[in-house]
Amino acid sequence: MLIIMDDSATQKEIKRVTKLIQKMGGDVHHLSNNTANSMSISGNHSGLNPEKIAKMPGVKNINDVKKPYKLGSREMKSGDTVVKVGKVTIGGKKLAIIAGSCAVETVEGTNEGGRLLKLLGANLLRGGAYKPRTSPYSFQGLGKRGLEILADARELIDIPVVSEAVDTESFDLVEEYVDLIQIGARNMQNYSLLKRAGRSKKPVLLKRGISATINEFLLAAEYIMSEGNYNVILCERGIRTFNEYTRFTLDISSIPELKQQSHLPVLVDPSHASGRRDMIIPLSKASIAAGADGIMVEVHPFPDKALSDGYQSITFEHFSALMKELDTIAKAVGRSI
Amino acid sequence: MLIIMDDSATQKEIKRVTKLIQKMGGDVHHLSNNTANSMSISGNHSGLNPEKIAKMPGVKNINDVKKPYKLGSREMKSGDTVVKVGKVTIGGKKLAIIAGSCAVETVEGTNEGGRLLKLLGANLLRGGAYKPRTSPYSFQGLGKRGLEILADARELIDIPVVSEAVDTESFDLVEEYVDLIQIGARNMQNYSLLKRAGRSKKPVLLKRGISATINEFLLAAEYIMSEGNYNVILCERGIRTFNEYTRFTLDISSIPELKQQSHLPVLVDPSHASGRRDMIIPLSKASIAAGADGIMVEVHPFPDKALSDGYQSITFEHFSALMKELDTIAKAVGRSI
Amino acid sequence: MLIIMDDSATQKEIKRVTKLIQKMGGDVHHLSNNTANSMSISGNHSGLNPEKIAKMPGVKNINDVKKPYKLGSREMKSGDTVVKVGKVTIGGKKLAIIAGSCAVETVEGTNEGGRLLKLLGANLLRGGAYKPRTSPYSFQGLGKRGLEILADARELIDIPVVSEAVDTESFDLVEEYVDLIQIGARNMQNYSLLKRAGRSKKPVLLKRGISATINEFLLAAEYIMSEGNYNVILCERGIRTFNEYTRFTLDISSIPELKQQSHLPVLVDPSHASGRRDMIIPLSKASIAAGADGIMVEVHPFPDKALSDGYQSITFEHFSALMKELDTIAKAVGRSI
Amino acid sequence: MLIIMDDSATQKEIKRVTKLIQKMGGDVHHLSNNTANSMSISGNHSGLNPEKIAKMPGVKNINDVKKPYKLGSREMKSGDTVVKVGKVTIGGKKLAIIAGSCAVETVEGTNEGGRLLKLLGANLLRGGAYKPRTSPYSFQGLGKRGLEILADARELIDIPVVSEAVDTESFDLVEEYVDLIQIGARNMQNYSLLKRAGRSKKPVLLKRGISATINEFLLAAEYIMSEGNYNVILCERGIRTFNEYTRFTLDISSIPELKQQSHLPVLVDPSHASGRRDMIIPLSKASIAAGADGIMVEVHPFPDKALSDGYQSITFEHFSALMKELDTIAKAVGRSI
Repeated sequence: MLIIMDDSATQKEIKRVTKLIQKMGGDVHHLSNNTANSMSISGNHSGLNPEKIAKMPGVKNINDVKKPYKLGSREMKSGDTVVKVGKVTIGGKKLAIIAGSCAVETVEGTNEGGRLLKLLGANLLRGGAYKPRTSPYSFQGLGKRGLEILADARELIDIPVVSEAVDTESFDLVEEYVDLIQIGARNMQNYSLLKRAGRSKKPVLLKRGISATINEFLLAAEYIMSEGNYNVILCERGIRTFNEYTRFTLDISSIPELKQQSHLPVLVDPSHASGRRDMIIPLSKASIAAGADGIMVEVHPFPDKALSDGYQSITFEHFSALMKELDTIAKAVGRSI
Repeated sequence: MLIIMDDSATQKEIKRVTKLIQKMGGDVHHLSNNTANSMSISGNHSGLNPEKIAKMPGVKNINDVKKPYKLGSREMKSGDTVVKVGKVTIGGKKLAIIAGSCAVETVEGTNEGGRLLKLLGANLLRGGAYKPRTSPYSFQGLGKRGLEILADARELIDIPVVSEAVDTESFDLVEEYVDLIQIGARNMQNYSLLKRAGRSKKPVLLKRGISATINEFLLAAEYIMSEGNYNVILCERGIRTFNEYTRFTLDISSIPELKQQSHLPVLVDPSHASGRRDMIIPLSKASIAAGADGIMVEVHPFPDKALSDGYQSITFEHFSALMKELDTIAKAVGRSI
Repeated sequence: MLIIMDDSATQKEIKRVTKLIQKMGGDVHHLSNNTANSMSISGNHSGLNPEKIAKMPGVKNINDVKKPYKLGSREMKSGDTVVKVGKVTIGGKKLAIIAGSCAVETVEGTNEGGRLLKLLGANLLRGGAYKPRTSPYSFQGLGKRGLEILADARELIDIPVVSEAVDTESFDLVEEYVDLIQIGARNMQNYSLLKRAGRSKKPVLLKRGISATINEFLLAAEYIMSEGNYNVILCERGIRTFNEYTRFTLDISSIPELKQQSHLPVLVDPSHASGRRDMIIPLSKASIAAGADGIMVEVHPFPDKALSDGYQSITFEHFSALMKELDTIAKAVGRSI
Repeated sequence: MLIIMDDSATQKEIKRVTKLIQKMGGDVHHLSNNTANSMSISGNHSGLNPEKIAKMPGVKNINDVKKPYKLGSREMKSGDTVVKVGKVTIGGKKLAIIAGSCAVETVEGTNEGGRLLKLLGANLLRGGAYKPRTSPYSFQGLGKRGLEILADARELIDIPVVSEAVDTESFDLVEEYVDLIQIGARNMQNYSLLKRAGRSKKPVLLKRGISATINEFLLAAEYIMSEGNYNVILCERGIRTFNEYTRFTLDISSIPELKQQSHLPVLVDPSHASGRRDMIIPLSKASIAAGADGIMVEVHPFPDKALSDGYQSITFEHFSALMKELDTIAKAVGRSI
């Protein structure tokens, strides 16, 4: 259920409505954009008396949100959510370009690579410190040392940084060091992790599970939002199908669908979606043309020597070419990079 | 195996090489573009003596094409194939825009609709006369009468027409009336139909089966080409996955993959891929951005009254908006509509 | 719509009801089992007057079949259909064991192999004369010669034979020579071929398409039945999924589902479903345990020398072991081999 | 790498080999069955000197295990692993029958239900205390109270109990109260949880992720085993495909494949695989016929009133019928219930 308040509603009126709903047994989530105040009610609805709520001073009207996800739905908020990550905004006219190596490897590599990527057009720097790996015998990331390297790069280069939190144990550290906390595809239904992310003050980048439906994806975002963190960015990264020529199958239609169902920003990760560096440029262009708010790509100075995912990383030269091509597409759809 | 001839090779030399190969047991396919003559050998290779062939006058060199598909492969022909359909070319700088109703219904509808579509930017007119339907109890198309209506529209409007041949029995009629013969997804591995299409002088639009791999798709095209018809256009129309929010899942990555593996033109059918009219614009833009040579869309004046596939058809107003958006994207990728 | 006649209805009464329905615009299909006569009406229902039909002498009652497939549905006929193929019955207590090589290769191989297979427990002999192959350059079968070899084996060994019809052109020949006509997975939606099979007097084995839904599969059977041939046997042969360790994924649940939705017999082809000979025994046992009416397996004296599909064929020794294991499972589910 | 010791090797010799390998940089896992001692080495292999190890007293021979999973592979251990859960063994001749409601709801329901299930043939009692739910607004389980109810039922009824651990936070509690710890499909790649389970002394039931490959599934088991817990039971529970008539698609072939690749016991969960109670009997029979070591089913006295997953739960009457049918199939494959 969604309560929309009058533009002229006072803070006192909002508080009184909030208390009434809580007394009736509902959990209240306050959502506001530039022009309006609204409240979403989650939890048990059986004790709620909509007519009584509607009569409270300051209440404009009440909507019943029919989707299973509430806070993330378009029914809840018609305008697009713009998430701030440091000085960068994601979801507005300017595209988000998140670039960097799959895993943080060295101080020099991270600093020099980051500087170059920013120069070439990236506005966020990614780097994995904790790596979820299919095999227990694969390189698992540098851990805390990786986060330190990444945070140092941020200061040196003046660029917000993104890294993945793989469990609740390491979440605090990741939260402390980075500007945008990534939750990976394997953890899309790790509900404890989602709830922990929901209690964070930092924005969260949530990747779609490899066989998650759109509904499951938005309900995963709802886990985060229902804990109070409304700064969620969705990221399509390919689904598992019978196709073998790419590692996964980029579900391009998910972009307009997510945009239609939700007000949250949508990014695309063409590196994981395809697992092929020769696909990065066409898939990135397609994604922006379809309405994505940005991309997240793996770049490595020497892809074939990368400690993980080298086969899908592009070089700086390749990234520079990508930026030029995206610039043209961005303009064609009224965006910029 | 691919035999590339000298630029200066004479017709006589070409004939002598052809005869030698035939004597050795191979089937010879002549392929030529503006700058070179070449021959592909299919069939049994066991009796071939490459060294002897290489020594023949006029032979420049011999390549062993490793892909299972030969005639359609990039290894066979590095330049892009441009297919002529009436005065329209598909595969060049200008995009192919095939539009029309799923099924031909009336003379007036076809003529007026076609005229309007041409005015708005379509360069080919589609209309089904024979409809492959999942249920034997569904409307199966007007048959010959539908073809006549379509052919009349072509004369009246001066636009090439496209229609589907669903079996070898009706192939002759379709071939007689239309400019571009479509083979649908359900028939992608109907080998008798493919071979019949291969003996036609008219170009063929081959749609990808709903669960065909890229390899199977290109081998289906090979069935047509191996009979001598090299004017094949490939069409991605969505694959079957676990996704339920769209009817099929547009496999956007197939565009760069098909372009890399084959020299044939690649179109996209966003109507069947999504089954949703609200997806046509974003998916069309994404397809062109990813490198497609054009699109094929269902347009109907009153989608909700269409005899088949109305739920995925767009109106003329919607088509007009699509053309405007595609124009901008086309320019951004160095193409035009 | 389904018309059920009184047990005591006369042929004359049945004829009068038939004529009335035809006058009203419906197509009538007569279905009878041991205890009752019934008629299914397909085609346009708009002109039908159920009340008038119900009042005709001999009419017991009228059911509205809600499934899109009518003739094949359980709503139409509650008892199991038992199809006769020569002296063998498929769908009854005794399991159908169809065995043989993928393609007919030699007279000796077919005769000796067939004799041995019958001795070991097979009750139908399979062999492909026309082979649908993914590549135009693969072995396409012996054609008419293959059918002759198979028909000779039938006489010599006294066993019904099965072979695939790949197109309407070769259908007549296949129909002439074999006892059970197979329609392969690639042709499951080749409607001209299905309709031709529907006009045959011989029973038809219809394989499920690799990505066909249950609904599409039963509608394909409906194409055959709506032309008057009610002797259709369904065959599950694996669907395409993300799994790579088997060629396809055997959809074991389709057996109880098909049995619930339809009265037609259901076989399973573990050879194509898995593409692995080491899977034949466990998958065959699972299929019979789940309620299948039999299996269809590829057996070849020297699998590694087979002209097609050798990697999934089993040897005679392996087939003998399979029969022993199936015998035990068959008894456990109240069946026999 | 796998080190197999002589039957006569002393504990002292085993210790000396262990120390040598550790000095060379390898992690040592001790595996023993009735007849032999062996050691698996994981971690970095670059410093290992196989020749030196082979010369150590007590070493019989050294095998290089090529699969990415080591400890769980058949190459590592040819005999079947039998896991003890209380007095029950899983993986031996007798089948494991795990039954119970999806979620623990009441004391009476759990006690009475458990007593009846044991009487009817169940040898393990399941009940969810922590429920991973797609929506944050769904019933999430009774938590600690649910575990207490379950543990009380165990004492009262004398039956081992199974419950799911959904995160590392609740793991300790689940571990304390239950006999077999379940890790659900959504958590199959929750590596922190897998590692925590690997440090437990209690056996673990690991469910396959809905789109996990066999390789990924066995690597998830490897995460548990590489921490020292070798008592892992695998559970197939259906994969996500295009099929819509069942909730997931039971991948029956995974049973023989897992049995071939791994020595670990394999169970099947037909309730989640199909989401349909009418499928439980045929799918259970098929699973046992294909070689599964048991099943895990949801049973609820009043399925339509269950707090979660009621639509796929069966009644006690239905469970009783299932046991009778499984008894016959079990005997047919040389097993018992």
